[in-house]
Amino acid sequence: MYSEKYPSRLLQEAVEAIGSLPGVGRRSALKLALHLLRQPAENVRHFTSAIDRLRNEVKYCSVCRMISDGDICGICADNRRDHKTICVVESVRDVMSIEKTRQYTGVYHVLGGIISPIDGTGPSDLTIDSLVARVSALAASDPPEDIEVIFALSGEVEGETTAFYIYRQLSSTGVKVSTLARGLGFGDDLDYADELTLGRSLVNRQLFRP
Amino acid sequence: MYSEKYPSRLLQEAVEAIGSLPGVGRRSALKLALHLLRQPAENVRHFTSAIDRLRNEVKYCSVCRMISDGDICGICADNRRDHKTICVVESVRDVMSIEKTRQYTGVYHVLGGIISPIDGTGPSDLTIDSLVARVSALAASDPPEDIEVIFALSGEVEGETTAFYIYRQLSSTGVKVSTLARGLGFGDDLDYADELTLGRSLVNRQLFRP
Repeated sequence: MYSEKYPSRLLQEAVEAIGSLPGVGRRSALKLALHLLRQPAENVRHFTSAIDRLRNEVKYCSVCRMISDGDICGICADNRRDHKTICVVESVRDVMSIEKTRQYTGVYHVLGGIISPIDGTGPSDLTIDSLVARVSALAASDPPEDIEVIFALSGEVEGETTAFYIYRQLSSTGVKVSTLARGLGFGDDLDYADELTLGRSLVNRQLFRP
Repeated sequence: MYSEKYPSRLLQEAVEAIGSLPGVGRRSALKLALHLLRQPAENVRHFTSAIDRLRNEVKYCSVCRMISDGDICGICADNRRDHKTICVVESVRDVMSIEKTRQYTGVYHVLGGIISPIDGTGPSDLTIDSLVARVSALAASDPPEDIEVIFALSGEVEGETTAFYIYRQLSSTGVKVSTLARGLGFGDDLDYADELTLGRSLVNRQLFRP
């Protein structure tokens, strides 16, 4: 009659739901469920409806596939940004990280993932076709050498594979293609850098301009 | 037009809602919101409805105030348990912790908090009156010396204050009142124990029965 683990089926179901989130263990899930139980009903309703509305009502920008409240995201709708420089990223989060640097004034293209045969993600699962169409359309109306596609993808093999796949698709357009600089982090000690990073930092060394 | 921090108002609201949970920072909240965004709509609906139902449908046992799916919880409804031994705890979680030890066969009383003038929690905010009524009713039908109330409260000053307050309320009933043993944890080294715990372990030393 009494479940040894949970005094209530409703509690058990809530703990299981919360525990299904990445990085949330059973113990934290229980803590969070009991926390929510102690909150005013109105606060809990607000909490769950914010999540429901995010999932059900958020839109994706028809140009760059970034999440957006409208059909065109704020970045693509901004005339002050350089629409001939397109930074290709894996996810929404990457756009937010780059925006935080305040160093980038171009636009984006969110792939929605990365090519990974192990995870079963192929090119057709990503927004590569729409990127190629977008770049081709740009290259038809503007000189291709004025257009730049920047790969801001992971340095792991999946990121490099994805970049190479897109690079081949874009090669006929004649646009400039670049990728993020990689090397020692600013302020990093040589002692703590891994060999690959240190080696590449040497190979890709830049002119010293003090 | 473009909020530098969030590309979507819906995302911002979800991150703020998730970030209001204890122990969840802004960074984790964003990660969790974007995770939920990638899940099938059906999974997210299941997630939020499990939380809504916990908050709106869970009941509290009319005897011990433990959460329950019915009017009487599984423990209070269990005839194999000793209903003359009542363990007084602060929260639902404490009941679950004690049940996990499998060492206790009595019943519980969940106070729903602890007396804390700093947090503004007084005796009337807790289920102390119903505990006193419950013990008094038991003491009227059974010999008071057969009835035991065990305080399983925090060792901090609030826990001791609460125990003392309840102790005074129960003193006229003549029931036995006890409290959890405190001392070094099993397997603990003396080096790592704090002075108060070590001191009390000495004062409350027990006969060695190998």
